[in-house]
Amino acid sequence: MHGHEIKVTFQPSGRSVYVLPGTVLLEAAGRAGVILQTPCGGKGNCGKCRVRLVDAPSDPTPASVGTLSEGQIAEGYRLACCTLVDAPLVVEVPPESTFESQQQILTADSGAEVEIAPLVHKRCFELSPPSSEDARADLVRLQAALGDIRVSPALMREVPTFLRENAWKGTAVLSNHHLVSLEPGDTTGDGYGVAVDLGSTTVVGKLFDLVSGRECGVASQINPQVTFGDDVISRIMHVRENEDGLAALQAAVVECLNTIVQDLVAQAEIEAEEVYEIVLAGNSTMQQILCGYDPSALGEVPFVQAFEQAQILAASDLGLTVNAAAEVYVFPQIGSFVGGDTVAGMVAARLDRWDEPVLFVDIGTNGEIVLAKGDQLLATSTAAGPAFEGARIRQGMRAAAGAIEKVIISDDVSINVIGDAPPAGLCGTALIDAVADLLRVGIIDETGRILPVEELPAGVPDALQAQLITEGDETRFVLASAEEAAGDEAICLWQKDVRELQLATGAVRAGIQIMLRRVGVEPEAIHRVLLAGAFGNFIRRSNARRIGLLPQIAGDRIRFIGNAASLGAKLVLLSDSERAYAARLQEQAEHIDLSLDPEFQMEFGMAMIFPAADIDVCKD
Amino acid sequence: MHGHEIKVTFQPSGRSVYVLPGTVLLEAAGRAGVILQTPCGGKGNCGKCRVRLVDAPSDPTPASVGTLSEGQIAEGYRLACCTLVDAPLVVEVPPESTFESQQQILTADSGAEVEIAPLVHKRCFELSPPSSEDARADLVRLQAALGDIRVSPALMREVPTFLRENAWKGTAVLSNHHLVSLEPGDTTGDGYGVAVDLGSTTVVGKLFDLVSGRECGVASQINPQVTFGDDVISRIMHVRENEDGLAALQAAVVECLNTIVQDLVAQAEIEAEEVYEIVLAGNSTMQQILCGYDPSALGEVPFVQAFEQAQILAASDLGLTVNAAAEVYVFPQIGSFVGGDTVAGMVAARLDRWDEPVLFVDIGTNGEIVLAKGDQLLATSTAAGPAFEGARIRQGMRAAAGAIEKVIISDDVSINVIGDAPPAGLCGTALIDAVADLLRVGIIDETGRILPVEELPAGVPDALQAQLITEGDETRFVLASAEEAAGDEAICLWQKDVRELQLATGAVRAGIQIMLRRVGVEPEAIHRVLLAGAFGNFIRRSNARRIGLLPQIAGDRIRFIGNAASLGAKLVLLSDSERAYAARLQEQAEHIDLSLDPEFQMEFGMAMIFPAADIDVCKD
Repeated sequence: MHGHEIKVTFQPSGRSVYVLPGTVLLEAAGRAGVILQTPCGGKGNCGKCRVRLVDAPSDPTPASVGTLSEGQIAEGYRLACCTLVDAPLVVEVPPESTFESQQQILTADSGAEVEIAPLVHKRCFELSPPSSEDARADLVRLQAALGDIRVSPALMREVPTFLRENAWKGTAVLSNHHLVSLEPGDTTGDGYGVAVDLGSTTVVGKLFDLVSGRECGVASQINPQVTFGDDVISRIMHVRENEDGLAALQAAVVECLNTIVQDLVAQAEIEAEEVYEIVLAGNSTMQQILCGYDPSALGEVPFVQAFEQAQILAASDLGLTVNAAAEVYVFPQIGSFVGGDTVAGMVAARLDRWDEPVLFVDIGTNGEIVLAKGDQLLATSTAAGPAFEGARIRQGMRAAAGAIEKVIISDDVSINVIGDAPPAGLCGTALIDAVADLLRVGIIDETGRILPVEELPAGVPDALQAQLITEGDETRFVLASAEEAAGDEAICLWQKDVRELQLATGAVRAGIQIMLRRVGVEPEAIHRVLLAGAFGNFIRRSNARRIGLLPQIAGDRIRFIGNAASLGAKLVLLSDSERAYAARLQEQAEHIDLSLDPEFQMEFGMAMIFPAADIDVCKD
Repeated sequence: MHGHEIKVTFQPSGRSVYVLPGTVLLEAAGRAGVILQTPCGGKGNCGKCRVRLVDAPSDPTPASVGTLSEGQIAEGYRLACCTLVDAPLVVEVPPESTFESQQQILTADSGAEVEIAPLVHKRCFELSPPSSEDARADLVRLQAALGDIRVSPALMREVPTFLRENAWKGTAVLSNHHLVSLEPGDTTGDGYGVAVDLGSTTVVGKLFDLVSGRECGVASQINPQVTFGDDVISRIMHVRENEDGLAALQAAVVECLNTIVQDLVAQAEIEAEEVYEIVLAGNSTMQQILCGYDPSALGEVPFVQAFEQAQILAASDLGLTVNAAAEVYVFPQIGSFVGGDTVAGMVAARLDRWDEPVLFVDIGTNGEIVLAKGDQLLATSTAAGPAFEGARIRQGMRAAAGAIEKVIISDDVSINVIGDAPPAGLCGTALIDAVADLLRVGIIDETGRILPVEELPAGVPDALQAQLITEGDETRFVLASAEEAAGDEAICLWQKDVRELQLATGAVRAGIQIMLRRVGVEPEAIHRVLLAGAFGNFIRRSNARRIGLLPQIAGDRIRFIGNAASLGAKLVLLSDSERAYAARLQEQAEHIDLSLDPEFQMEFGMAMIFPAADIDVCKD
């Protein structure tokens, strides 16, 4: 039952994924990190998710045609929401079809609306040389050309010599009325910045041309801090227990960033010297370690972070090998577990600008939830638990090669495995898939119990009944037989796994409930659920809703917004006004500590009961 | 004729000088750096220069009593302007009699009006520890207590640990809304600053308690840069001709400042760590070298300085061994030869606050002149030439041991020599004295020629005629015979010396003339001439006026204001508002380049003719 995967490649990014035959192209795109616009909810009505298939079949299915003209169809255009993958595909994604363009803030090469106004910018100048009649001080002369800029003593040491050796002209690199550096000649065309998604596990950097806004490269590295522990708590413990623990963790991530920068500048064929700015978004622990601020207080009650407002550091102070004058911007933080990555996501989602209530959800080890009702913003985090990352699941694993990442259970069981490998375990998305479908077919009841064969309701297909194994009073469901599996053992969904999922789901759901109640919004009134982050990208919306992880609202109101933290970092990098916006959002947000809410325990208990039934069936 | 010197000691400063018998006590005080108030011009009318003589003679001369009551006389009080020194004295100077008190800005221990509000200040704080109910970020908690302070990343690295190790309380050192450092306990009582007069030859530092404003020590050092050349031009040449020249000069002065700081903290029995601020005033070259800004352009046409506005540097950046977070303030500059020391002097003299025109004059190798008419300020410098410092004078020397520093010529010649030594040469003040008195007795004519005996007018005393030696068509005047002198040679005033003095004097006088004409003020309308600087302190006003160095105005309008640069540095150190005042004065001042004035050459030529006669005879 281990289906053959089909390769789908997206251009211009060149990213590829392998998916089961019959997968909706929209979902395949999402898994590749290509987030398409779906204002109609993927119903084929709006035509916004238009892509072009290279070597498209000459006879498209009627559904995949949707709102397209005949000419467009002949050129290979299809709607991603209505196209099923049944053969290897190369897909061209027009910039206007991506989610980012929906935000009206995209880069120049997209052709979409652009506002490129980075904090760091350059100005070419040419001064009249001094004479007896005009013997103004060097700095006064420079200020007359560049405005009332401030110049550090370190840079002032270069000014007199620079001006005289370069015939009183050159290019000034400016940042917020500060002179950052002076460069000979006209270099206004060269200037780069890096936006970094600083994850506990993975660090992703993107290189941008600060003049055009164009993305010039992507590079990622495993966060080398994983050798000090998988999660933030183990890293905080390392800091607490080792005198040089903080320094070691900081050095590790700095080295990682330097590797990423080297990779990026090699891709773009530029010098690291041309990188003038780095914008970083990470959780509070990652951000504090990078800054060198002791994160110990983040690891124990009452969980206190060091700062709230954005931190500006000198790249040279951190040991980053970019331009000596480059700045590092670290995002503002809302709380110990609602960090800079969440604020960056809020920036990307324009979270205070929706007319109706919107829920922003980023699910990982922690589930960060932000509820926006007009400009009222409530933010919290729930200990979603490690279940979504495959931990504490008996045969769980991370979303790596060999992991079952997708499960479809109807008449039969169908699975998809990451990479060209036999299944070795299941990751978070498969766990959600399996439980949701077993709820649908009646094998798992509302309380989360996997029913033994004798207690099953009528109509459960024989093929599924055959997968049930009962020992004592516990039943498990076989997803892959011992023959199929990588080891000697069948890969099963165990009763305890369902309990872990109930805990994780219940925490998120209770958090959402309490936030909704605080602002007086019914779940049905939620206009959009915006799913951010890598995990959010991969889950099936209908299944997440079936198990109660997401509110019981129509599927077309649930949207994937991709790596919102990375997008937010990019926005701040490319536009000064986005910094002010990030600061505003941080200030506006009210941090809710769920553990202090008297209703949380009861809500949590209630939320562990699965919803009675689906409200609709959406396509993913 | 080498008179026996008499020691006069002034309290509370403890400074001593040796003076000729018959010297006015007011002058002796000035030479000791104790500048007394003399609003009446030293005529015995105002009583402001009141001092108390320890072991005063029971029968004071009537003149020395002046405006004093019988009780005061019995206690030993005398008027310094009317008291002649004829025996060793210990003099107590009441704070209200000093010039500084006239400025209404004196230190707390003077009892005079005080405004102590230094930029660097401390605040004790005690925060409520975080709890689940109040888990604000560390920085937010600190800001709630201290206001919206900014904290550098370097200091933020200490904040979380400091707060937890010190039970959430301590003392914050603040500067201009920046947190400078955190100290355990309540250290609001401890905090010091150093005001530095950064001269080309001598560097003087004064230590002040930033809480009380009290002066806690004085230390001085020869500027070690003298090994690279005596004057600023030779130091600039050293920078231009040696690749590491600037670094070497900078290192030398930094080491000198560190020695001064060590001396000061030892005097006050404090730690160098407790010094949080250094304020420096020097000429443009000295200031730029200290900052590390290449001074080369100050040494050639069109003479361009690097900056105008005050520079703020980190003491640690310069390598100064004070508190790691201490700041160094370097005064604003008006022009290449009207530097921070002049601006500091303008601050001390409150130069824009006089109702009538005031002339500020600081004479050294350069003569800096500032003319104030209301808030109109014209500033210039003249190449007064090295004559005033004893250079280019055939038997000239600096004002060091063995230098004739005072000459009185009437019926006979009387000289005073610095230190207990035979005369070895003459310094600038003696040069002025000799020429002024020889003009008075008719031995030098208006054109500056030393007349041979046969051309003398009638009535020149024989004793003086005997001092004239004529060789060829040049005549010289013997000040000390070969027998009296340190070497085998008599010490003489040579014809060439008079010419040098005419050049130096003419430059200053022409500068003053041109400035007066620009603002439409007649010399007689000058309300005050304020003589600043070490040299200004030592010259005899009447003699300076006789040779035309100062305008022909009544002696009581000519005032010594002491080391105005040092006083200005102190003011800026003790009061934040004085920084803004210094910036305002710098901005208000119009820099006049005399070399560009078409009338300068003619004025200069005319100014070399000595004035016809004295307008009055004043006491000094």
